[in-house]
Amino acid sequence: MKIAKDDSNINPLLNLKNLVRDDLEKVDNLIYSLIASKIALIPQISRHTISSGGKRLRPILTLASAKICGYQGSAHIELAACVEFMHTATLLHDDVVDKSDLRRGESTANNLWGNKESILVGDYLLGKSFDLMGAANSIDIYKTLSNAAVIISEGEVMQLVATGNIDSDIDSYIKIISAKTAELFAASCQIGAILANKNDSEIYALRLYGLNLGIAFQLIDDLLDYFSTDKLLGKKIGDDFFEKKITLPIIIAYNQATEDERILLRKMMRNSTAEYKDFTQVLNIMNNYDIRQKVLKFAQTYVVEAKNKLDIFANSELKTAFIDILDFTVNREF
Amino acid sequence: MKIAKDDSNINPLLNLKNLVRDDLEKVDNLIYSLIASKIALIPQISRHTISSGGKRLRPILTLASAKICGYQGSAHIELAACVEFMHTATLLHDDVVDKSDLRRGESTANNLWGNKESILVGDYLLGKSFDLMGAANSIDIYKTLSNAAVIISEGEVMQLVATGNIDSDIDSYIKIISAKTAELFAASCQIGAILANKNDSEIYALRLYGLNLGIAFQLIDDLLDYFSTDKLLGKKIGDDFFEKKITLPIIIAYNQATEDERILLRKMMRNSTAEYKDFTQVLNIMNNYDIRQKVLKFAQTYVVEAKNKLDIFANSELKTAFIDILDFTVNREF
Repeated sequence: MKIAKDDSNINPLLNLKNLVRDDLEKVDNLIYSLIASKIALIPQISRHTISSGGKRLRPILTLASAKICGYQGSAHIELAACVEFMHTATLLHDDVVDKSDLRRGESTANNLWGNKESILVGDYLLGKSFDLMGAANSIDIYKTLSNAAVIISEGEVMQLVATGNIDSDIDSYIKIISAKTAELFAASCQIGAILANKNDSEIYALRLYGLNLGIAFQLIDDLLDYFSTDKLLGKKIGDDFFEKKITLPIIIAYNQATEDERILLRKMMRNSTAEYKDFTQVLNIMNNYDIRQKVLKFAQTYVVEAKNKLDIFANSELKTAFIDILDFTVNREF
Repeated sequence: MKIAKDDSNINPLLNLKNLVRDDLEKVDNLIYSLIASKIALIPQISRHTISSGGKRLRPILTLASAKICGYQGSAHIELAACVEFMHTATLLHDDVVDKSDLRRGESTANNLWGNKESILVGDYLLGKSFDLMGAANSIDIYKTLSNAAVIISEGEVMQLVATGNIDSDIDSYIKIISAKTAELFAASCQIGAILANKNDSEIYALRLYGLNLGIAFQLIDDLLDYFSTDKLLGKKIGDDFFEKKITLPIIIAYNQATEDERILLRKMMRNSTAEYKDFTQVLNIMNNYDIRQKVLKFAQTYVVEAKNKLDIFANSELKTAFIDILDFTVNREF
């Protein structure tokens, strides 16, 4: 069974993945057994979205967190499947909201099957994820994950409300990505520690590791949307620009731009019919202000913060792998 | 605070509502306090949808079930809010899927705010509902409700897949409405009994009461879509017809029709551009075969089944009210 698309590349994520490989295979088997509904459309859409969904980062974090905390039971398998289902449900709804056609080089479910289908199968996977939360019989885990579901959707709504508003500041942007992306990273790590009955210091160390990793991850995602290539990204770059999403590159560029450039940027982020030449123009402005390096430097502060949170754990191969994926996160090109 | 739109009408639902009135007011207060997010769009859409959402039937069932089982605690308030949130999330997504403009005489959220907004606020309310499930610290309640969420979305997908397929039979139709509608009625009742630590006979008696009530409820909903009036229904009748939803009136009509009528019905349920005159023609066929009475008679079998399930409970004012809403359900015109 294909576990993820990037197995063949040597990257630091692979180290962490290798250390939980057996568990991850169990997670994948569980995922595919759970989507085997009698209604053919459900496994079709779920399978398509899960297998094109990417790096399995969130379940890997749950498995690795449980492991670094010395967990000996088996509920981490269900919980890892749970966070992957939550993530997949979000992808399905996001792609409808963003009218996306491509994700990681594959057609999106809304493109292949339709919006209605994506909304409803997203709801199904969200329901399944809640079904899985019960695996550990832990009210704390259950509260952590159900709270994460609320925060994720709040983040999505905040992002929608901020669309096209170039006056959004860095703080609001960080709030949005903390909620829509980093919260699930945080919860994925946190539940591993709760599962292992660790005390608050370990639980919050892993939570904050995940939160900072998640913020750095989304910062780079948003950067790549301007500075990667269609081929590496598996979809057209510039999606955020054309969807009028206000992300860090545009916020920094706007803050540093001349009055003329600001008028132009403001107009473009309002304009619902921007063209490719507008995008190129924005890229030029960004290059003039060295936005790529500035965002990378900004992301690095979250990487440092995340690394510090790991101090509480003894050195081990696993801890090194936890550190390495931070570097992978900011250095990746896809 | 307005508890529901039909307070002024004397109807049997009112009896049950009156018997849990104080609790229902607490539920409403809790609901409105929980949607008070800092992101204005969330309370706006939630409030609009919840207040135009109807009869509060599901939370009333939870409150009344807890009461008839002698429950003395306070978690039934959170759980009643939980089932109302689950219901409201479903309404928001349903209206996007069905492209509905009106619900109970008011514009739908997707009409007023947009599809994206409805999808994401629906997700938010679903998350909130899961947050509330923890109130009773009961894994059984949690499993009942999260399982209901999965079944509801399966029902929605089944309905979508069956769209326009006039060869659907009564069994498939009952499966669909059991899942998409009756399961939440069943769970709403069931959790009241679990909360009160009743044994399996009471738990399943209430579950099956709710399930049969829910089936009867949806049968009548689908009947009213052909035989009510715009004014009574608060939206245009014929929505199901124009959306090609295969419901019992059309299934029975098709089963009894002449070959010519069957060809006509088949064509119409496939035709994506049906007109009002087509709808009138279908109504004529239905009248010829006395479909209204046939559906009412069919619904009555579920009413009888539901009533029988209550035998296990001692006679009381509350039990009478439970019986009365069955009659209300089939006799209502809205």
